[in-house]
Amino acid sequence: MATTEDILSAIDADRGPALERLFDFLRIPSISAVPSHFPDCERAADWLTAELADLGFEAEKHPTEGRPMVVGHMKAARPDVPHVLFYGHYDVQPVDPLDLWRNPPFEPKLEAGPRGERIVARGASDDKGQLMTFLEACRAFEKFGGPPCDVTALFEGEEETGSPSLPAFLARNAKTLKADIALVCDTGMWGPSTPAITTALRGLVNQEVILRGASRDLHSGLYGGAAVNPIHALSRILADLHDDNGSVAIFGFYDGVEELPEEIRAQWSELGFDATAFLGDVGLTTPAGERDRTPLEQLWSRPTCDVNGVVGGYTGEGTKAVLPARASAKVSFRLVGKQSPERIVESFRSFVTSRLPPDVKAEFISHGASPAISLPIRNEALRRARRALEAEWGKPAALVGCGASIPIVGSFKRELGMDSLLVGFALEDDNIHSPNEKYERESFHKGARSWARILAALAA
Amino acid sequence: MATTEDILSAIDADRGPALERLFDFLRIPSISAVPSHFPDCERAADWLTAELADLGFEAEKHPTEGRPMVVGHMKAARPDVPHVLFYGHYDVQPVDPLDLWRNPPFEPKLEAGPRGERIVARGASDDKGQLMTFLEACRAFEKFGGPPCDVTALFEGEEETGSPSLPAFLARNAKTLKADIALVCDTGMWGPSTPAITTALRGLVNQEVILRGASRDLHSGLYGGAAVNPIHALSRILADLHDDNGSVAIFGFYDGVEELPEEIRAQWSELGFDATAFLGDVGLTTPAGERDRTPLEQLWSRPTCDVNGVVGGYTGEGTKAVLPARASAKVSFRLVGKQSPERIVESFRSFVTSRLPPDVKAEFISHGASPAISLPIRNEALRRARRALEAEWGKPAALVGCGASIPIVGSFKRELGMDSLLVGFALEDDNIHSPNEKYERESFHKGARSWARILAALAA
Repeated sequence: MATTEDILSAIDADRGPALERLFDFLRIPSISAVPSHFPDCERAADWLTAELADLGFEAEKHPTEGRPMVVGHMKAARPDVPHVLFYGHYDVQPVDPLDLWRNPPFEPKLEAGPRGERIVARGASDDKGQLMTFLEACRAFEKFGGPPCDVTALFEGEEETGSPSLPAFLARNAKTLKADIALVCDTGMWGPSTPAITTALRGLVNQEVILRGASRDLHSGLYGGAAVNPIHALSRILADLHDDNGSVAIFGFYDGVEELPEEIRAQWSELGFDATAFLGDVGLTTPAGERDRTPLEQLWSRPTCDVNGVVGGYTGEGTKAVLPARASAKVSFRLVGKQSPERIVESFRSFVTSRLPPDVKAEFISHGASPAISLPIRNEALRRARRALEAEWGKPAALVGCGASIPIVGSFKRELGMDSLLVGFALEDDNIHSPNEKYERESFHKGARSWARILAALAA
Repeated sequence: MATTEDILSAIDADRGPALERLFDFLRIPSISAVPSHFPDCERAADWLTAELADLGFEAEKHPTEGRPMVVGHMKAARPDVPHVLFYGHYDVQPVDPLDLWRNPPFEPKLEAGPRGERIVARGASDDKGQLMTFLEACRAFEKFGGPPCDVTALFEGEEETGSPSLPAFLARNAKTLKADIALVCDTGMWGPSTPAITTALRGLVNQEVILRGASRDLHSGLYGGAAVNPIHALSRILADLHDDNGSVAIFGFYDGVEELPEEIRAQWSELGFDATAFLGDVGLTTPAGERDRTPLEQLWSRPTCDVNGVVGGYTGEGTKAVLPARASAKVSFRLVGKQSPERIVESFRSFVTSRLPPDVKAEFISHGASPAISLPIRNEALRRARRALEAEWGKPAALVGCGASIPIVGSFKRELGMDSLLVGFALEDDNIHSPNEKYERESFHKGARSWARILAALAA
């Protein structure tokens, strides 16, 4: 029987072809937020289905009301081993502003970086590169008769748009998807050489609000001064979202938010988070959130409200003397603790409608909602995974929080009663959701080795 | 020698060809705010130059730093007659939102309307249809030996972008352009059957402000709560522009604003302006401006500040978890009385920069500035024009104000020491600057007849 060292050597020997496989995958512009890219999402799902089949999985693409799911099952050679469900997503973020990319976002390239070669493309880190670390580990095991655990792979194509089809899909397929633990790779390292396991995630509520005034765009000279301007109304509402302390001013917003337990606060302060460097890397100097919180609290344990987009009136070159008929904003909330997504939606809508001037009407669109989640930090799988990561990276894995949301983790808990182990190899400077997204070639390679070690440890 | 009746009959007989000429002109998409349409602006200028030459004018296209000017001169048959300068503009507004047009904006069509046939196209009213009323009058005179006044025609292609090249052009060509009076057609009727002469115009200042935060777009989960959001900063600034009374809150903004003289207030109240109908036509019920002013004051004699456009972050379909690196707004001010455009620009910029949070920088772009203007209402040309309009329409011309700006009128006064007579045949429901812009066929036809009468009256 193969040793873990055999598996790791196989991964090392296969570095070149592994990169080619990832590049193939990255060339598919599977942007789930943009309807014209829906066919590309299908292609990405087909690609993964074929990849799983090639690895010996019983693999199938499942249609949903949105983008399809890809599910594959593979039994371990030995019986009575743990069953893991590995989750990833094949969809990627939109690429605008396109002019800030050094290369076309769907033509992956190796670039030299300060930490060695890096893979540059949309999705290189989030999440195609990350999910391929797991499949490359499976490929190495396959050469020696298959993985040490029973493995189910689940890939969705709507993670970047709030995973609308996922909860129902999980409920419908609970029997085949329920495993002993879920492995979720959509997270990062604590630093370039320090692995991490994420044990706290913020939730996410996405709302869009459209304000409408006059029945058509008006000439601002002929109507200005008498006709209502929806941009003004929207600006006032958005301005009111935060008070002067930087706190969210929506009634009841902090219901369910808990103070950080002293032991977690202590552990976080030991992480040596450098807020100055964190902000300095993106050209900022001053934490902009709640004034009475540390930056790590602002990011990991405090809820937020951010306007992700606003548009109204004439936004082309030059000027246009227009009083627009509408203005709209996309507003998102990051949730923590026991904040209720449903109540946040309700409170936000009341907040907006109570501030509408005469003749302005509001329309709302929901783009998904998920609560925050905390993972049990004394779980046996977690203990084994930490040890496996330490063996690969030479130092203990940090237990960290994450400001971003991974709705699947909540869905696994709710729909399947299953905990998730969050391990990923992204770095803070991967530019995910931004131009020039990258993934370190070392993340890709040592990520695959890490998964090989984790699977072996879970089965031991 | 031809009588005015001969000229009017010639205009009546030429209705069909006149419409064809206007349609030709309307087919040129001469949008001055959009660089890709600059060649179309050249084509429109060439078209007008040829048209003037065809009417017997000595005509020439003059390059500027922006879009070209077209100038034509034509002597009257008789000596010692007044010299008039007719002004119009061949550039048009952008056409977005394109999906609200019933027909392509540059494929002019006749449609049946409640007041007879109407010409539908971008520029049908503002200003191609209007300026062609004058040229059609000239064409009728040409059949009988030429116009009764010396006529200079001046057409620019930057009216919709603040006329940046015009003041210098006027100054350079003062000698050939200076006339006894300017005739400016960029205004409207008081009602469908009531002609008007506009004697008060608001000024206009256009400013664009761009706020920048982080050096790149950030993931709102990974950075939200700690990193500054330029949309929030911009919303607060835009919200602060007006106080709860609807007044503009910029320091010193009302310096130079004068109260309406009692006689003008009395005349305006006799006009029987129906604010409910005015707003109701565009789906509104409530005057939104300064609470302590009548709607007609809000529109004609009070300054305003309007945000004409705002954009930041992700504005496509669905959602994107982004903290944008920038957000921007186009802000315009309508000026009255003796408000100084330069001081308004300065005050606005101070207003913005004093409200910037840490790490947010502002960049400003100026898109033109012009003061308000009032025209002497006891001028001899005005008296004659009123009589001519009354002869054509069967009722006295109203003397009105106008909320929009016609910067040329200020430039004529400043650069050439020349007053302007503002006569036009647009109607309030012409949808200028909006989808489905139209011009009544009656406006076009009786407009040409009106100019024939006015030119005859000025020369009498």
